[in-house]
Amino acid sequence: MLQPGLMMDRPLLLSSVIEHAAAQYGDAEVVSRETHGPLFRYTYSECAARARKLANALAGLGLQGGDAVGSIAWNNHRHLEAYYAVSGSGMVMHTCNPRLHPQQLIYIINHAEDRVVLFDATFAPLVKGIAAHCPNVRTWVCLADAANTPAIEGVANVLAYEELIAPCSEDFTWPEFDEHTGAALCYTSGTTGNPKGALYSHRAIVLNAMSGCLPGVLSLSPAETILPVVPMFHINAWCIPYAAPIAGAKLVLPGPRLDGQSLYELMESEAVTVSAGVPTIWQALLGHVEQHGLRFSTMYRTAVGGSAMPQALIAKFMDTYGVEVRHGWGMTETTAVGTMGTLMPKAKNWTSEQKQALLAKQGKSTFGVEIKVVDEQGNTLPRDGTSQGELMVRGHWIMASYYKGERSPLVDGWFPTGDIATIDAEGVMQIRDRTKDVIKTGGEWISSIDLESAAVAHPAVAMAAVIGVKHPKWDERPLLFVVRKPGQTLSKEEILAFLAERVAKWWVPDDVIFLDALPVGGTGKVQKSDLRKQYGGVFS
Amino acid sequence: MLQPGLMMDRPLLLSSVIEHAAAQYGDAEVVSRETHGPLFRYTYSECAARARKLANALAGLGLQGGDAVGSIAWNNHRHLEAYYAVSGSGMVMHTCNPRLHPQQLIYIINHAEDRVVLFDATFAPLVKGIAAHCPNVRTWVCLADAANTPAIEGVANVLAYEELIAPCSEDFTWPEFDEHTGAALCYTSGTTGNPKGALYSHRAIVLNAMSGCLPGVLSLSPAETILPVVPMFHINAWCIPYAAPIAGAKLVLPGPRLDGQSLYELMESEAVTVSAGVPTIWQALLGHVEQHGLRFSTMYRTAVGGSAMPQALIAKFMDTYGVEVRHGWGMTETTAVGTMGTLMPKAKNWTSEQKQALLAKQGKSTFGVEIKVVDEQGNTLPRDGTSQGELMVRGHWIMASYYKGERSPLVDGWFPTGDIATIDAEGVMQIRDRTKDVIKTGGEWISSIDLESAAVAHPAVAMAAVIGVKHPKWDERPLLFVVRKPGQTLSKEEILAFLAERVAKWWVPDDVIFLDALPVGGTGKVQKSDLRKQYGGVFS
Repeated sequence: MLQPGLMMDRPLLLSSVIEHAAAQYGDAEVVSRETHGPLFRYTYSECAARARKLANALAGLGLQGGDAVGSIAWNNHRHLEAYYAVSGSGMVMHTCNPRLHPQQLIYIINHAEDRVVLFDATFAPLVKGIAAHCPNVRTWVCLADAANTPAIEGVANVLAYEELIAPCSEDFTWPEFDEHTGAALCYTSGTTGNPKGALYSHRAIVLNAMSGCLPGVLSLSPAETILPVVPMFHINAWCIPYAAPIAGAKLVLPGPRLDGQSLYELMESEAVTVSAGVPTIWQALLGHVEQHGLRFSTMYRTAVGGSAMPQALIAKFMDTYGVEVRHGWGMTETTAVGTMGTLMPKAKNWTSEQKQALLAKQGKSTFGVEIKVVDEQGNTLPRDGTSQGELMVRGHWIMASYYKGERSPLVDGWFPTGDIATIDAEGVMQIRDRTKDVIKTGGEWISSIDLESAAVAHPAVAMAAVIGVKHPKWDERPLLFVVRKPGQTLSKEEILAFLAERVAKWWVPDDVIFLDALPVGGTGKVQKSDLRKQYGGVFS
Repeated sequence: MLQPGLMMDRPLLLSSVIEHAAAQYGDAEVVSRETHGPLFRYTYSECAARARKLANALAGLGLQGGDAVGSIAWNNHRHLEAYYAVSGSGMVMHTCNPRLHPQQLIYIINHAEDRVVLFDATFAPLVKGIAAHCPNVRTWVCLADAANTPAIEGVANVLAYEELIAPCSEDFTWPEFDEHTGAALCYTSGTTGNPKGALYSHRAIVLNAMSGCLPGVLSLSPAETILPVVPMFHINAWCIPYAAPIAGAKLVLPGPRLDGQSLYELMESEAVTVSAGVPTIWQALLGHVEQHGLRFSTMYRTAVGGSAMPQALIAKFMDTYGVEVRHGWGMTETTAVGTMGTLMPKAKNWTSEQKQALLAKQGKSTFGVEIKVVDEQGNTLPRDGTSQGELMVRGHWIMASYYKGERSPLVDGWFPTGDIATIDAEGVMQIRDRTKDVIKTGGEWISSIDLESAAVAHPAVAMAAVIGVKHPKWDERPLLFVVRKPGQTLSKEEILAFLAERVAKWWVPDDVIFLDALPVGGTGKVQKSDLRKQYGGVFS
């Protein structure tokens, strides 16, 4: 008979994260860009005190454990306080992506049954448009002081955050409850059907955040200053707002200013050492830095995820700017990071190109997450770096079922990611495609991601996308879309010749379409479904 | 009503630690000193395979979940395999300190009801002496091949480890069970009464090991090679045998050779970057290095705990050898690390002396552990760096009650450590004394540890100990014991004059006794109880 251990049984709760920071790193800084412009700065100790004030304020509004509080907000300190006040009180922090279509926003606010919605002034017009359709929302709270809280025509119940919390006490005893309690809710922006919600537990977030601090993941400590550009409405900014206080790292929140110049200036003025974001943001940042002949004085590492980082961009960061790139993978259903690519010690003597090739992959699963790839019958494929199949994940911060979902999507206890991947003998995973984007031609698969990465390596290409188009003989054939860089010329023949030197002959697209821009969805990803709708006919 | 999160509910089990290493860091090395001399090396992948063989072998011996397996062994690869095979099977790994008195060893083996005991050939004479008194032990397994397994007179049931596992399969499906299940058992060597056992749960060890990998604690990653000198029979070598596989760090196990020369040579030949051990081991290592004019080529960080590290030793490591010292605190009842001292970013411009003064303290509590100091009435004392009281701890890897203990030692849910400490405004904790060692004089407290640290700073002093002796007027007064370095002369007057310049006048000991050696107990700590017995009369 198993013997029970004799240790204290304390729950892993988010309230303990911010109180740990307040107690042990009380004077470490949080710097935040206000929505109206200026920088705000305070300490974890002050952040915890204001989170407790907000917890009192929410209780004062009549909210209780289990109630949902929505947010339509940038990365800023009030949003951070809400992360802790809401979840710490046993309520559910529901972060909404403001880039969703208003109809989808209305859907998720009602589906989550948000009682209060916190918003940044930027999104006042959005609130104006949706408030009447969200009858459960008693109060709309603008994350600002009274002076910076706009009146919203037709919306009576708007409060200024600072006025809401001002009369409240800094004393609040965080409730203790089961660590499996829901803490945060994030909806995936499905390209078809309604968005689906992942309800993260306290336990999942705390374990993920601890993992995020590890040297092999983000490597956070009091010596680091981290700037999460990845939004707090997107998978909790990869849990960095929870990881930084665990580690005592200085946290810099960029507010609404996400253009290359603003980010660069913030990195320099706050001596940011580590940053995290999606490839498109880094493309804009490097564009600014290149154009003005700048260097990074302190930033030496960046974590990239959300979509595959082209090897050319990795090369620029590393070789030109001396910034280490860590290329990870995760999704809404995996709380945050599931795998992270870093160089192993043996890479010391590798060429730059070898290093970049490795970092173009999404890396090894972090402790707490297991990965495998399976064929269409569910058989586990060998870890040989070439056998492609659907990536399956299992672990402490992987979703089991969607919020109010009718059935669990799990297969034998594993979550099917919808990503096509390979895993090599050393455990390094590489995303080859989305199951729905992979191009099946003559019984073989072509990775749309690999083709796109090859295309953006051309100096005249700003963006590229590949879809499969029906073909009478080959089942499907690739069609390439290219957005040229400003002022650049590039012909179909030139880009195809460029690709022919870099990919297998049968991978070379059958046609190329030049566009001024690619359709981009709520989370900044290219919407291939739109391309398919418009261009997905049949090759003759 | 709280909402349940919708994440996978997977247990935190030790089997997943070694399987993670096998899957994701399969070719990272484990290097181990055999008890009979040579170095052995293999990978985490091979380690996991052999752990599965041992799990099959233990099942073959008739053992079941909940059964206890003892070990009397050095830090080596077979001991590591047993860590995972035993706990992974749902059994309890009971590590025995071979330095305990044989009577105490017999007591703990019987108290734990060990069914099998693993031992290193070094300890064959010990086994010979105790086996007849341990009737529950069915099999004694020597951690060696047949050639290196000695026959033990009078002990029939001795097996060689390699013969035991040779016929067993590498396939074993680790059972899944509640993460609160007991995984490992370690007894404190109480100076009075029988030893008491702390039964660590899988959850406690996994969380502690994850915490140990953090940049602010041991900072483990595939880039590091860690040598735990702290024994695997002493609080699971501070959980490093669990932390290294989580991080994918190379693990170097020194076997029985713990002298300065052997450790130095192993550090150099295996390119060790991080080490961990008690101050006395480091004193011997530095003695060797100094005597031979050597340098550390790769070792750049060492974690120290178990007893307070004198500032003079910290200074030598840092200033002379460029090795970063991290000074931590923990005890058998806290699974491993509870606090860790590192320099904060603001220390950049500090003098060496300021840095060393900070590192002489035991540092901040790591995430997952809360600390406070209380007065004799249990009131929490201010975090002002001067208010001394008993250190109380609470957290995910803190013990709730002793194994087969009659009552929980907890006070309001906190574990009373028996250490006297201060905590400053930044959360930095400093051990001032043991509650039983602190010297109460004229209504004030004198820290025996501070006095000892001041004494060993004298160049002629090898070791020092201070006890309180009854005094008719002052209640207690300090009495100093000094062991001189070989060939050094030092008079009572000289050491007292030296101390008078460094401590408050009323702290200067009333008398000094020179000894050839101090009495040392099973875990390498000075036994002040012996000194008290022999010298603790009354000052006149």
